[in-house]
Amino acid sequence: MGASTYEYRGLEKEITPPEGRLGVLLPGMGAVSSTLIAGVHLVSAGLAHPLGSVTQMARIRLGKRDNPSYPLIREFVPLADLKDLVFGGWDIFPDNCYQSALTCGVIDKTTLQAVKEDLEAIKPWPAVFDHSFVKKLSGPNVKQAASKMELAEQVMRDIEDFKRRKGLDRLVMCWCGSTEAYQDVNTHPAFQTIESLEDALKENAAVIPPSMIYAYAAISMGIPYANGSPNLSADVPALVALAAQNRVPIAGKDFKTGQTLIKTIIAPGLKARMLGLSGWFSSNILGNRDGEVLDDPQSFRSKEVTKGSVLDSILQGDLYPELYGDFYHKIRIEYYPPRGDAKEGWDNIDIRGWLDQPMQLKIDFLCRDSILAAPVALDVILFLDLARRAGMSGIQEWLSFYFKSPMCRPDLTPVNDLFAQDKKLRNTLRIIRGEEVIDHSGLDYYEDAD
Amino acid sequence: MGASTYEYRGLEKEITPPEGRLGVLLPGMGAVSSTLIAGVHLVSAGLAHPLGSVTQMARIRLGKRDNPSYPLIREFVPLADLKDLVFGGWDIFPDNCYQSALTCGVIDKTTLQAVKEDLEAIKPWPAVFDHSFVKKLSGPNVKQAASKMELAEQVMRDIEDFKRRKGLDRLVMCWCGSTEAYQDVNTHPAFQTIESLEDALKENAAVIPPSMIYAYAAISMGIPYANGSPNLSADVPALVALAAQNRVPIAGKDFKTGQTLIKTIIAPGLKARMLGLSGWFSSNILGNRDGEVLDDPQSFRSKEVTKGSVLDSILQGDLYPELYGDFYHKIRIEYYPPRGDAKEGWDNIDIRGWLDQPMQLKIDFLCRDSILAAPVALDVILFLDLARRAGMSGIQEWLSFYFKSPMCRPDLTPVNDLFAQDKKLRNTLRIIRGEEVIDHSGLDYYEDAD
Amino acid sequence: MGASTYEYRGLEKEITPPEGRLGVLLPGMGAVSSTLIAGVHLVSAGLAHPLGSVTQMARIRLGKRDNPSYPLIREFVPLADLKDLVFGGWDIFPDNCYQSALTCGVIDKTTLQAVKEDLEAIKPWPAVFDHSFVKKLSGPNVKQAASKMELAEQVMRDIEDFKRRKGLDRLVMCWCGSTEAYQDVNTHPAFQTIESLEDALKENAAVIPPSMIYAYAAISMGIPYANGSPNLSADVPALVALAAQNRVPIAGKDFKTGQTLIKTIIAPGLKARMLGLSGWFSSNILGNRDGEVLDDPQSFRSKEVTKGSVLDSILQGDLYPELYGDFYHKIRIEYYPPRGDAKEGWDNIDIRGWLDQPMQLKIDFLCRDSILAAPVALDVILFLDLARRAGMSGIQEWLSFYFKSPMCRPDLTPVNDLFAQDKKLRNTLRIIRGEEVIDHSGLDYYEDAD
Amino acid sequence: MGASTYEYRGLEKEITPPEGRLGVLLPGMGAVSSTLIAGVHLVSAGLAHPLGSVTQMARIRLGKRDNPSYPLIREFVPLADLKDLVFGGWDIFPDNCYQSALTCGVIDKTTLQAVKEDLEAIKPWPAVFDHSFVKKLSGPNVKQAASKMELAEQVMRDIEDFKRRKGLDRLVMCWCGSTEAYQDVNTHPAFQTIESLEDALKENAAVIPPSMIYAYAAISMGIPYANGSPNLSADVPALVALAAQNRVPIAGKDFKTGQTLIKTIIAPGLKARMLGLSGWFSSNILGNRDGEVLDDPQSFRSKEVTKGSVLDSILQGDLYPELYGDFYHKIRIEYYPPRGDAKEGWDNIDIRGWLDQPMQLKIDFLCRDSILAAPVALDVILFLDLARRAGMSGIQEWLSFYFKSPMCRPDLTPVNDLFAQDKKLRNTLRIIRGEEVIDHSGLDYYEDAD
Repeated sequence: MGASTYEYRGLEKEITPPEGRLGVLLPGMGAVSSTLIAGVHLVSAGLAHPLGSVTQMARIRLGKRDNPSYPLIREFVPLADLKDLVFGGWDIFPDNCYQSALTCGVIDKTTLQAVKEDLEAIKPWPAVFDHSFVKKLSGPNVKQAASKMELAEQVMRDIEDFKRRKGLDRLVMCWCGSTEAYQDVNTHPAFQTIESLEDALKENAAVIPPSMIYAYAAISMGIPYANGSPNLSADVPALVALAAQNRVPIAGKDFKTGQTLIKTIIAPGLKARMLGLSGWFSSNILGNRDGEVLDDPQSFRSKEVTKGSVLDSILQGDLYPELYGDFYHKIRIEYYPPRGDAKEGWDNIDIRGWLDQPMQLKIDFLCRDSILAAPVALDVILFLDLARRAGMSGIQEWLSFYFKSPMCRPDLTPVNDLFAQDKKLRNTLRIIRGEEVIDHSGLDYYEDAD
Repeated sequence: MGASTYEYRGLEKEITPPEGRLGVLLPGMGAVSSTLIAGVHLVSAGLAHPLGSVTQMARIRLGKRDNPSYPLIREFVPLADLKDLVFGGWDIFPDNCYQSALTCGVIDKTTLQAVKEDLEAIKPWPAVFDHSFVKKLSGPNVKQAASKMELAEQVMRDIEDFKRRKGLDRLVMCWCGSTEAYQDVNTHPAFQTIESLEDALKENAAVIPPSMIYAYAAISMGIPYANGSPNLSADVPALVALAAQNRVPIAGKDFKTGQTLIKTIIAPGLKARMLGLSGWFSSNILGNRDGEVLDDPQSFRSKEVTKGSVLDSILQGDLYPELYGDFYHKIRIEYYPPRGDAKEGWDNIDIRGWLDQPMQLKIDFLCRDSILAAPVALDVILFLDLARRAGMSGIQEWLSFYFKSPMCRPDLTPVNDLFAQDKKLRNTLRIIRGEEVIDHSGLDYYEDAD
Repeated sequence: MGASTYEYRGLEKEITPPEGRLGVLLPGMGAVSSTLIAGVHLVSAGLAHPLGSVTQMARIRLGKRDNPSYPLIREFVPLADLKDLVFGGWDIFPDNCYQSALTCGVIDKTTLQAVKEDLEAIKPWPAVFDHSFVKKLSGPNVKQAASKMELAEQVMRDIEDFKRRKGLDRLVMCWCGSTEAYQDVNTHPAFQTIESLEDALKENAAVIPPSMIYAYAAISMGIPYANGSPNLSADVPALVALAAQNRVPIAGKDFKTGQTLIKTIIAPGLKARMLGLSGWFSSNILGNRDGEVLDDPQSFRSKEVTKGSVLDSILQGDLYPELYGDFYHKIRIEYYPPRGDAKEGWDNIDIRGWLDQPMQLKIDFLCRDSILAAPVALDVILFLDLARRAGMSGIQEWLSFYFKSPMCRPDLTPVNDLFAQDKKLRNTLRIIRGEEVIDHSGLDYYEDAD
Repeated sequence: MGASTYEYRGLEKEITPPEGRLGVLLPGMGAVSSTLIAGVHLVSAGLAHPLGSVTQMARIRLGKRDNPSYPLIREFVPLADLKDLVFGGWDIFPDNCYQSALTCGVIDKTTLQAVKEDLEAIKPWPAVFDHSFVKKLSGPNVKQAASKMELAEQVMRDIEDFKRRKGLDRLVMCWCGSTEAYQDVNTHPAFQTIESLEDALKENAAVIPPSMIYAYAAISMGIPYANGSPNLSADVPALVALAAQNRVPIAGKDFKTGQTLIKTIIAPGLKARMLGLSGWFSSNILGNRDGEVLDDPQSFRSKEVTKGSVLDSILQGDLYPELYGDFYHKIRIEYYPPRGDAKEGWDNIDIRGWLDQPMQLKIDFLCRDSILAAPVALDVILFLDLARRAGMSGIQEWLSFYFKSPMCRPDLTPVNDLFAQDKKLRNTLRIIRGEEVIDHSGLDYYEDAD
C-alpha cells in the first residue's frame, strides 16, 4: 500500500500526553472492581502480570509482512501509567476494598496481603440504589435525597471532593455494579432528550435507574463514561446527545468476558466456513453476587438481551436463510453457590455441513468472572482516557471489542464478530497515529501493483 | 475510503469466463472424493445443500456499512458451475465411486440411490502407489513401470485420455489420497530444482513419494494442483519453480477441517484478548481409513507437523514470551473403529488470565471428517480454476483459508489465523474485481476525513 | 452358604405358566409406546435386538463363583413371550401407531417399513384428558362424560372390548403418557381411602388427574398397573389399598432412563468411596413432546421432585453431615427442538476428597429418551405379569430398579442406589425360585466356615 | 433373616485390640506418600478432614431396614488410631517428607506449615532401585549390594532399626513407588516357588524387580504387605506361598483411584441395564512424576494391563456376545506438565440401546491423583493391620474394593465391579463380627417367610 495514497490522513490525531494522575471512578465495588484495583496494585508492585489486558500486554504490527515492527500498544499510543491510577467508588456495602476482595474470594488471601494497606484505604462512598431495579440485593450504605437529580448532584460532589483531595488531573468513570432490571430504550420519553431526562431526574421518575444517574453525573462533568453491565445507563439518546454536547467519549455496554466472548469467537468461524446452525444452547453456572442478582428474572432479562443478539448480528440470517434463518438460541444463567466467583459456561452448538449433515460442537469454559472482566475494565478506562486526550467524543465504536452489546451510530449495525472488532480497534489506533491500516489482502506480495 | 485513492488498482484482473466443462482429477477416491462427487451430483439435482462451501453459499460485502450490497461470491467472480464438473481419479482399490461411497458410510444408502448411476460410471484408474510411504494400506489397482518418470507419464496419459474422451475444456487436480510418511523438504537435493527432480524421477529415486509424481504430472501439463494432505507433494522448490515456469496456480497443504479448524478459530481469539497459554492438549478419535493410515507413526508425523505449527505461528511466542513463550502442545490421533467416518476432536486448553490465574477451556467437536473436507476440496478446485482463468500463477496464498499448513512465499511467515485468512481471501476477490478492500476501521463513520 | 440353613424358604412361589396372549394397555401412545410396540414387532421378526431389556437379554448367576451357572432370566422365571404380546392404548391424537412412530422420529422410516402393517392396525381409543394437568398439549381424540367415574367406566369398557375382541388371557396396564402438574399425595383427602376416592370420582373432583382414572380402572379390574411418569397416579393410599384388596401387583413411579439413571450409578460410587459432595448441577436439553410438556413449570415440578430426591436418599446426609449434609442440587430440563427425541444430559458434580480438596466430575450423556424407556416399559410389563401369576400383590418394591421414585412400604426408605436395586431384583428372582441369594461376601472361599 | 439360621457363624473372628504404635513402611516417598503422611498429621491435629477414607468416615448398616443402626466402621471393628501411626520409608531422592510434599505441590504451602516439623523429621532410607525397571527416573539415594538378597536384608535391617528406635508394636508395608516395566507372572520360573525366588535373589537375577525385593523382605518378617502399583511385586506364586506359610495378609494390586474407579462404577451400571458397548476410549492427562514414569512404554504397559482388564471382567463378553463380545477398548496416558498432580481423565463410551441404537456417554474427571490415592493407602494399611490382628492371612480378596487388578484365589475370577467389591468388604466386616450379612432382597418386608 503506497504511503502517498493514504486515505485516512485527515483522521490522525494530536494527543495530549497523559501527565498527572488519573482518577478512576467505580460505581459498584464488588468482585470486578476489587479484582481490578488489587490487580493494578499487584502489577505495579511487580507481583503479578496483567494478562488479559491489551493495553498492558499487546503489541501492534506496523508495516508490511516482509519488514514488520511490533511496538507495544502502550508505547505506540500514549496511555496513562498504572502507577498514576487513583481509585474511588460507591457501593451499597460499606466494606473497604480489602474486605470486599476477601469476601469475593477471587484473589487468595496470601497474595492480597502485599497490597492490604492500599486496599484498606479505599472506602466506598454511599451508593445511589433503587431496590426495584436489583431485587436480590440490599445494603446499608446508600444515599438519601429528595429527587434523583439531587442524587446525581451528590455523586458530582463525591467526585469533586475526590478530585481535589487526591490532586487528580483527569477522571474516567466505569460502571462495575449489578445488572438492573430490563428496560427498553423506548420505554419512556424521558430517555429521548437532554431536557426530558433532566426533567425526569428532577421529578424523581421511577423509570430512571441508578446507573443512569451515575452516567448523567459523569457526562455532565465532562468525564468519560463506560458501562460494563447490560443496563441502559448511558445508552439512551439523551445521554448520547449530552456526551456530544460536552465532547465526552462514552462506551458500552456489558463487558464481553466468558461465554459471550467465546460465542463471538466461534460464530464468526462457523460463518466464515458457511457451516449451518440449527441450535445453540448456552448454560452458565456461577456462584458469586452476580449470579445471585441474575437469579431474578428481570435482571436476567437484561443480560439475556445483550447476550442473545450477538448471534443474529454475526450470522445475518436474513442474508443466509438456509444457514442461519431458523436456529434455536437459548441462554441460561444458573446461580450455583459451590462455584463462588469461578464460573462454568457450557455451550452446545448444533451445526450442519455438506449435504445438511448434522455435527455438534461442545464447549466447556471453566473460567473466572472477575479475572476476565478486570483487564477489560482497565483497557476501557485507559482507552477512554486516551480518546479524551485525542479529542474524540461521543460513542467510541472502536471499543466494541470489549462489549457484549456495543453502542454504535443508530443507522449502523453493531459489529459483534470479535475479529472484526479487533481489527477495528487496531486499525483505529493506526489511523489516529497516521500509520497505514492492515487489510490482510497480501496479493501485492506475489504480484506488483502499478 | 475514497475511490480516487485506491491503491490496488494494478491488481485488478481480466478473467476468462468459465465456458465448457471442467475436469476434476482426484488422486485417491476414498471418503473425501466420493463424498465430494456424490455431493456435487446431489446438489446439482436439488436433493441437498452445499453447506460448508464458500463458493456455493457465501456472499461478500461490497461498499460501506451504511450502504452495503451482498452479492453471492459465485456471482461476484465467474466460477465454474457445478453442472459442468466432470470427475475422474485414481485409487489402489478398483471399486467404482458408488461402491466406495457405500463402504465409507458417510452418506446413507437411501440418499445415494438418487445418484447411483452417475457414481457407478466413475471407475478409478490404477494408482501410483508405494507401500513404503503408506504402511497401513495395500491394494490391487496399481500402476507398474520401470521408473517414477514412467509412472508420471502414465498419469499424463490417463489425463489426456480423460480430457479427450469427455470433451473437457479445462482441468484441475486435487490430491485426496492418504497421508504419506513424513519427509522434510530438505531431505534430499532432488527436491531443489526442476532438473534434479526430473533426474530423480528417471532414476526412480526412493525419496520421491507418489503424491509428488501426480503433482509433477499435473504441473507439467499446465493443470492447477492442490494438495489436501500434509504430504510434501508440490511443496518443494522444484515444483514451485515448475509452476512458475508453466504459469500454473498451486495451493496447499492439508485441508483444514476438524480440530485444526477449531484451533485456528480459538487461538486468535485468545491472543486478541492477551490470555496466556500454558498447555493445549488435542486428542482425536476416528475410525475411517484415514485413522487407520495415521496409526502408523510415520504418517502421523506428517500430520503432526502440519497440525502442530499453527499455534506457534498464530501466537508469536517470540514477541510474547510471558504469554506464549512456553506452552505445552500435544496432539494425538487415535484410530477408534466404532466411530467410522464420524470423528471426535477433544481439546483441553489451559489458559491464564489477569494476575496469572489459571482457567480451562474444553472443546469437544463431534464432527465428520469427509463432510467437512468435501466442500473445502470443492472450493479449492473452483478457486484454482478461477485463478487460472485470471492469469494468476504460482502459490495462491489467498487460499490459506483452506489449509492447515498454507504454502507462501519463503520469506514470509504463513498466516494461520482463520480470520486473517478469511479477510485475505475476500479482499483478494475484491481486489481482482476492482472493488475496495474492507479493513474494519470505521472511524470515518464518526469523523469526517479530509 | 449351606442349603440346609436357607432362611427364605417360605418365600418360594408357585408360578402359573404364561399361557395364552397378554394384552398390554398403554395410556399415551407417543414416542415411548410407539418405540416399544415397533421394537417388539421388529425383535419378534428377528430384525433388531432388544438391548436395554433385562427380561430379554440378561442372565442370572446361580451357585458359587467356583462353579456358577448363568441361565437367561427369561428361562429362569416363566415370562410371557414377545410373540404373545398384543398392544392397545389411548391417546389424545387419533394417529395410528405407525403414524405416531413416524412423527416421533425415533426409528428411521426404512426400518419401520418392515412392521408398518402391524403398527397401522393399532389405533388409539379416545383418551381421558384434562388440560389443567397438561398445559402444553391439547388434542381431539378425547372422551366426554358426566363424571370422572364415568370416564373410568368408559376405560373399563375399552379394556373389556379389547380383551374379548383379541382373545386375551391376561392384561397389564402401563402409563406411558405425559407428565401431569405436580400434586402432593396429601393434597386432598380424596386420595386417602378407597371410598373417598370413589366418591371423588363420582363427584368429578378437580383434584383427580387422568392418570389416576386409568389406574383406578385397571386395579378395579384386577389388572397389574405400572406408572412410567412422575404423576401421582396409583401412588396414593386409596389405590394401594385397592391393589391389596384386589390382589393386584402395582409398580412405579417414573421410568429411570437418562440422567437420573446415571445419577443413581454415580452417586453410590462416590458414597462407597466417601467422597464429599458440594454441588450437583444437572441440565437436560431435549426436543420431543416430553420436553415440550416439561416446559410448563407445573409439569416440570413433578419431574423435579422424582429426580431430586434420589441423591438425598442415596447419600444419607443425616448420617454423613460432613460429606453430604449441605450440597447444592439443581436440575434443569430445557426444551430444545433441534434435538428431537435425542436428548443430552449434562451433569457437573463438585466433589471433595482427602483434606477437603475439590475435584470435578462432568458427565455428558448423548442419549435417546424413548430408546432408553422402551425396554424399561417392556421389563416392567413382563415382570408385573410374572408377579401376578406368582400370586404377588401390592407394591412390587423389587422393581425399584426401573423407577426414579420407587414406591415402597411407607415406613421404609426407598432404595435409589441402582446396584442395591439390581441386587434386590435378582435376589428376589432367586428367592421366588428357591435358589440361594448372593451377598458377595466370599470369605468362605478363603476360610472354611463350620 | 433369622439369627438361628446364620450360616457364616464359623467365620467370626477373635480380634486382638490395636494397642501400641503401628509402623507404616512406605517404599516410595513421592506424591502419594507425602500426601498420606501430611494428611494423617493434619487430620490428627483437627486441621482437615479424611474425606475419601472408608476407615475414617464410613458407617455400616446393621440390622433390617425398618430398624437399622449405623455405627462408624472404625468403631464397629477395632482399627488403629491415626495418632498411633508412625511413618518411615525409602526413596531414591534424599528429600525429607516436607520437601517432598512441597515439590509435589498437592497440598498448599500454607497448610503444610502446620505439620512442617513432623514431616521434616521423616527422611527416606536409601532405596532399592533398578533403572532397567523405571527408565524415566534416577536418583542418588540408593542402596548398593552384591546381590538382591543382600538388598532385601538391608531393607529388613532398616525395618528392624525403625521398629526398635520408634518402639513400634506392629508394622504394615505399602508400596507407593513408581510403576515398573511390565512383566508377566509367567516370565520366569524364579517367581513360582519360595525356593526358586530365594535362589534368584541370591543369584541377583535380572528378572526380579525392586518392588518384589521389598515384598519379600516384608513377608519374610511377617509384616502385612500391600501393593499400590501395577508391579508384579507380591503377586507371584512364590510370595503368595510365603505369605501363607508366615500367616501374613497381603493385598494388591494398583490402587483404584481416578479413571478406573469411574470405569468400575459406570460399567456395572451399563451392564445392569443390558446396554451394549461398542467402544470405550479413555485418555488421561497428568503432569506429575507418575505421568513422567508412564511416558515410558514399558511402564505404561504395566498400567495398561491392570486398567484394561476391568471391563472384560465386569462385562463378561463370553456370556453376552451380542452386547459385549466385540467392543474396542483403548487407554491412553499422556504426560502433560501444565497440570502437575492435577489429572484429567476423559472417557468416551459408545453404547447401544433398544433396537441397536447408538448413544454416547462422555465423562470428564478433573481429579487429583494423590488426593484420591492417599485415603486408599490409609484404608488398606489399617485393614491389613486389622486382618493381621484377626488372624486372617494370605490374599485378602475383600480388599478388592481398593485395587484396579485385585488379587484373588487363582481359580476364581477377580471381582472388579465397585459395588460388588463394596458389598464384599462390608459383608466381610459383618461376618467377622458375627453380624448378619445384607443381600438387598427385601421380599420379606412384604410377605412373611415361614
